[in-house]
Amino acid sequence: MLHLQSESTQRWLLHVDQHLNELLIDHAHCERKAATTALNLMNAYTEDLELCREMSRVVEEELEHFFMVIEILEKRQIPFRRLAVGPYGRELNRLIRSAEPDRAVDRLLVASLIEARSCERFSLLSEHVRERDSELADFYAGLFESEARHHTTYVRLAEHFAPRALVRERLDQLSKMEAEIIATGSDLPRMHS
Amino acid sequence: MLHLQSESTQRWLLHVDQHLNELLIDHAHCERKAATTALNLMNAYTEDLELCREMSRVVEEELEHFFMVIEILEKRQIPFRRLAVGPYGRELNRLIRSAEPDRAVDRLLVASLIEARSCERFSLLSEHVRERDSELADFYAGLFESEARHHTTYVRLAEHFAPRALVRERLDQLSKMEAEIIATGSDLPRMHS
Repeated sequence: MLHLQSESTQRWLLHVDQHLNELLIDHAHCERKAATTALNLMNAYTEDLELCREMSRVVEEELEHFFMVIEILEKRQIPFRRLAVGPYGRELNRLIRSAEPDRAVDRLLVASLIEARSCERFSLLSEHVRERDSELADFYAGLFESEARHHTTYVRLAEHFAPRALVRERLDQLSKMEAEIIATGSDLPRMHS
Repeated sequence: MLHLQSESTQRWLLHVDQHLNELLIDHAHCERKAATTALNLMNAYTEDLELCREMSRVVEEELEHFFMVIEILEKRQIPFRRLAVGPYGRELNRLIRSAEPDRAVDRLLVASLIEARSCERFSLLSEHVRERDSELADFYAGLFESEARHHTTYVRLAEHFAPRALVRERLDQLSKMEAEIIATGSDLPRMHS
């Protein structure tokens, strides 16, 4: 359902174990950036009012999630701060073709894969911390559904710009590359490291 | 209360009379751009969580207004489309100083003045069309309160980056320049022409 071609590795769970606070801060930033991606897409393809309506919903949900993570940070007295940005988003964005309508298809599919990977990791994180931190486990389990829905929404909207078969083919290509990017990883402990 | 140093002229009301449909389309774009401005500010000054909370509220309200205008367009069978952008926003953005924290102050005050001018024009538009188009008159009267509140919010947030006296002085400078920009105007019929 999530169109991912790899599972997160033990290496990432080491980041979870050793740098959980930093990962939580990064998660807040991810939600803020996800809202921005959705609003940027609404601005770029604003004549597509169905896209605008879907993006507007995504913006509101991601902003809501941002403040949910901030609340968790505040409860745990983890100061919110800027973090150096990991390579994941940058590497994925480099795959976006420049000419329309390919660009629209790729922007939407890249967004769909980021949501999918978040989804996979939220689920893994939730299971991994369940025994020692049930509050966090419940929080991440609760985010799964909306992130999965966002993934599906982005894939469906890509079909506004290309026939379904082409969208599926491109999604397959991009998700292969996403799996390579996530396998290369990063030493920075991040949601997508 | 709105810190404006001029009133809109008869010339703008001619745009209202002659190009109302185009102004309505432009208004939808204004709301979308106002949401974007607020989210950009949240991204730029994300460690200021009070600012984030206020900006998030502005984003949601502006997106809601966007769809309210779209609904009016659909009811009136006015096709929504891209428009050439008028000079108002560009000219105002050129006044923003580049070094922080001046940049933050200016970005917030420019946003406050755009909200103030919208407010003034919504009120004028509402009165101007009242006799012939009560639906539109009511709509614009209804938007007045939230735009005025956004103006106040932006001015208050500027005080996170500079002492109140300096903010007031800069607001006075910028609103003088805003009055000049709006007096020069534009031939394109726009909300801020």
